[in-house]
Amino acid sequence: MLNEIKNPSELKKIPSEKLPALCKEIRQTLIQKISTVGGHLAPNLGIVELTTALHYVFNAPVDKIVFDVSHQTYVHKMLTGRVQAFVDPAHYHDVNGFSNPAESPYDLFTMGHTSTALSLACGLAKARDLLKQAHHVIAIIGDGSLSGGQAYEALNNIAEQGGKLLIIVNDNEMSIAENHGGYYQNLAQLRATNGKATDNIFRALGLDYIYEPNGNDVNALINTLQKVKDFDRPTVVHVHTKKGYGYEPAMQTPENFHYCAPFDIATGEVKATHKVNYGQITYEYLAQKIKQDPTALIVTAANPRPICFDDSRRQQAGKQFVDVGIAEEHAVAMIAGAAKGGAHPIFAVQGSFLQRSFDQLHQDLALDNNPATLLVMGDHVHGMGGSTHNGFYDIVQLGNIPNLLYLAPISKQQYLQMLEWSIQQTQHSVAIRVPDAVIDDPLPMNPTFSFNSRIIKHGQDVAIIAVGSMMPLAQQVVQELSTHHINATLIDPVCVSQLDNKFFNENITPHHRLVITMEEGALAGGFGQKVAFYFGDSNIKVHNFGFSVGLTQDFEPDDLLAQNGLTVENITQYILNNYAK
Amino acid sequence: MLNEIKNPSELKKIPSEKLPALCKEIRQTLIQKISTVGGHLAPNLGIVELTTALHYVFNAPVDKIVFDVSHQTYVHKMLTGRVQAFVDPAHYHDVNGFSNPAESPYDLFTMGHTSTALSLACGLAKARDLLKQAHHVIAIIGDGSLSGGQAYEALNNIAEQGGKLLIIVNDNEMSIAENHGGYYQNLAQLRATNGKATDNIFRALGLDYIYEPNGNDVNALINTLQKVKDFDRPTVVHVHTKKGYGYEPAMQTPENFHYCAPFDIATGEVKATHKVNYGQITYEYLAQKIKQDPTALIVTAANPRPICFDDSRRQQAGKQFVDVGIAEEHAVAMIAGAAKGGAHPIFAVQGSFLQRSFDQLHQDLALDNNPATLLVMGDHVHGMGGSTHNGFYDIVQLGNIPNLLYLAPISKQQYLQMLEWSIQQTQHSVAIRVPDAVIDDPLPMNPTFSFNSRIIKHGQDVAIIAVGSMMPLAQQVVQELSTHHINATLIDPVCVSQLDNKFFNENITPHHRLVITMEEGALAGGFGQKVAFYFGDSNIKVHNFGFSVGLTQDFEPDDLLAQNGLTVENITQYILNNYAK
Repeated sequence: MLNEIKNPSELKKIPSEKLPALCKEIRQTLIQKISTVGGHLAPNLGIVELTTALHYVFNAPVDKIVFDVSHQTYVHKMLTGRVQAFVDPAHYHDVNGFSNPAESPYDLFTMGHTSTALSLACGLAKARDLLKQAHHVIAIIGDGSLSGGQAYEALNNIAEQGGKLLIIVNDNEMSIAENHGGYYQNLAQLRATNGKATDNIFRALGLDYIYEPNGNDVNALINTLQKVKDFDRPTVVHVHTKKGYGYEPAMQTPENFHYCAPFDIATGEVKATHKVNYGQITYEYLAQKIKQDPTALIVTAANPRPICFDDSRRQQAGKQFVDVGIAEEHAVAMIAGAAKGGAHPIFAVQGSFLQRSFDQLHQDLALDNNPATLLVMGDHVHGMGGSTHNGFYDIVQLGNIPNLLYLAPISKQQYLQMLEWSIQQTQHSVAIRVPDAVIDDPLPMNPTFSFNSRIIKHGQDVAIIAVGSMMPLAQQVVQELSTHHINATLIDPVCVSQLDNKFFNENITPHHRLVITMEEGALAGGFGQKVAFYFGDSNIKVHNFGFSVGLTQDFEPDDLLAQNGLTVENITQYILNNYAK
Repeated sequence: MLNEIKNPSELKKIPSEKLPALCKEIRQTLIQKISTVGGHLAPNLGIVELTTALHYVFNAPVDKIVFDVSHQTYVHKMLTGRVQAFVDPAHYHDVNGFSNPAESPYDLFTMGHTSTALSLACGLAKARDLLKQAHHVIAIIGDGSLSGGQAYEALNNIAEQGGKLLIIVNDNEMSIAENHGGYYQNLAQLRATNGKATDNIFRALGLDYIYEPNGNDVNALINTLQKVKDFDRPTVVHVHTKKGYGYEPAMQTPENFHYCAPFDIATGEVKATHKVNYGQITYEYLAQKIKQDPTALIVTAANPRPICFDDSRRQQAGKQFVDVGIAEEHAVAMIAGAAKGGAHPIFAVQGSFLQRSFDQLHQDLALDNNPATLLVMGDHVHGMGGSTHNGFYDIVQLGNIPNLLYLAPISKQQYLQMLEWSIQQTQHSVAIRVPDAVIDDPLPMNPTFSFNSRIIKHGQDVAIIAVGSMMPLAQQVVQELSTHHINATLIDPVCVSQLDNKFFNENITPHHRLVITMEEGALAGGFGQKVAFYFGDSNIKVHNFGFSVGLTQDFEPDDLLAQNGLTVENITQYILNNYAK
């Protein structure tokens, strides 16, 4: 059946009694594809019926349907002309894992971060009213996203705005890890009372409210949606779904299948690679740390996986591990408060998600030098990536805040030394740029950490300054240059938020004519531009390597590096062409 | 009485029956000082009794009291050793208008942005528990701040965290303008029912709740605080206060007295300067625009004053004016949705507050080129200023986002042309850096706007690129250079997010040896560093003028400019010393 649905109008021709069979087929297709290539399995399994019902009842793309985060739009993609990308392995990579206007007019926004759908829908509804149009606007939010403050700001404004707007709360009892916070207790009360509990956050915000307990029953959903479709006030439809529905391993351990690598369908065993990564290293360090220091406090914003704190490890950490929910703004100010109060907080977060906290990093954390530690988890070129999740703007964000020290380790040894130092010191707000690949330090470690820059290899004429994860590539360039009889200096800047002026002045200025910087991040506002500024009116020339091409598109890692000239050949050639000028 | 209170323990010695007289004295002192030097009058008048009661019942600084936004800490400052700064005109400027750890150990954080106090208090309480201490933690929030999403993220997390934490909701029925959104309806219901309404957002979030209707009765407040003081679960005390209480003009028009210039106490007439500013120019333009274009939509985040939309003007604008409340994250994504839906949204916001929206600017607005317009209202050197409100990081934030065009007009004519162009075009997300001082354009305007750079004056050897508001100073430098027989080129870059490479290559590269940039903003990650990067490996030298000194302190405008070398003398001297090298 699925193969025949080229667009939602063909879906509408299917008699409703056949829809459960269609949903089963969709579910099998999801499991088959994701077991092969990986992806967001559990969220999509939970929303098969809801997505089908939405496209059955509403008339997209005239009606505007906005899925929050959009990691649960696989079914939506199947039903809106992109089924080949799910049924035919040769086309598996024709679509990405998120809402994507470049793929289809049914996708309105490029989305990947949480808690934005309500705001976007609020704006769409406002535009509709100003343009005197009559279509429906529907936002689907849930799966943890309701803890993000922006969602609440939007609920407030939607209640005031009034008019026709449907808010589907996809309540699967889960965030990425388990749900956290008072809000989720209220959802639980509402589930337990079939929507009738006295306390009701949605009604308290002035919104109309309906409860639908059968979120994995496609015909029940169709009935409910048809009932509320033409309500002329903003209405919350609270739908109870089951994350991972229809695949036993995903229902048992939905956290493992929120986003998963390829897996064995029969056993549910994920084919994970078991190489050592910084997540494990961080976990091992922190597990020890909290035993030694009862004031050490590990904080996550609903994403403990990058530091390998699974459920049992979180239980073990007890009061020293806090999951604040998807709430990065709160997390940063909360660790500022905890640091001020004398605790030793460590907030581990993906760089792209930390973009939510630009203001709190400035004002709450760094302005008063509150001594908390942030671990900014990679997702650089070889990470989760894509246009929405790449960690390419962290230096722009964290490297230009007065007071804040942003450190970029090149090695495991240096990382652990930074981490230990940062947690113990009481003078600075510190963030650490955790790389993706683990390497050993090329130098013997000093007994104590200093954030001064380091010479990795002495040379002359040409100096290469390689930020953190770029060190292995820089080492290859130095090696290649040596075959051309150029003895380049190689420098680890250590800190990317402030230049080590004394070091630069003593070690670079006297002996070099050309300085090359390499960073795995956006050039604009990045580290290299500070170096260009520093040498701007000297006789030393500067060239920066980093990303300017492809920043708003999805990418393949090697392509992106090549497009931006970050290859041994290109950098070597640049130096050969320019160092003697 | 007030003069004798050197710290809160002396306050505690005053018999409770004398406290109303003390409050009266405090109120008179506030009116006297603020009528002379300006300040946040209405918020502080409303909170006289609450602040007095807090310091009477609790034991700061052992107990931790955190005032949200902290523009309502004048009374707190009077009662914690800083009374001279309020009673003695010679000492009026000894304190600033916000919580300030540099002034006193009773001030825990440098604060100025809204909705952060709950997160900070949550962190303080967590640290207290880890350190096995027993003090109280109290957060005071209200005056509009509860619409900020971060406050809700914190309420969620506080409910889950549990333990002893008091949340005082200072409900004065007001934000900076009037309150907006569903949340405030709920507060109104609670006030109307003496706290007994069925819908209760705080209970829905899992928090305990108590209502205190007499928020301007100091002894009623003391009784209530003593009752709840030792509750071992997070408790909301909803206190109904009157903004501007005790000064008739401030009660009548609290919006005008939220923050006010010096005024006449007898009449309440504010001694405002009536020079033309960009707020008025913007209002006049937009008032016309919404008449001509029914899809034009003006958005504010609870701060319509910088664009001069007072209450009656907002009423006139009707559905084409939206105040989303203090909710900058939502505002940016909402205008992205409205632009996608075909409307022409314009969001006017102070640069410092827009820091809340870094992620939404990236992901929701610019990634898909949603064609909305942001007006980033000044507060550069001569604006509201201070360490928390200065608009010095807007270029860092808005100038390094792929796709987003950040434009910096130098003149009224150019600003209006940009605005008109931006609202009509459908290709770009646009932000405009609105300067503080209005000047006329030195050139005849082209009939249509182009964001190419412009030569203001042709010259050679030295090129000065002046960003927006720096143009008058740059013109003086050019004038001064001419007396030294240097014929400098003067350039208006127009766009500060992307360099006009073709223009640079054709107009700067061939004829110049030294390029100077001038910007009213932070150097790190700013415009000048892009220019240094561009010319990094050429023979042209670059020097950037902007701010690196004093970014984390309060400042006097002329001092800050001088400390950072932004004077005619210094820049001229630099050029004389360096242009011939």
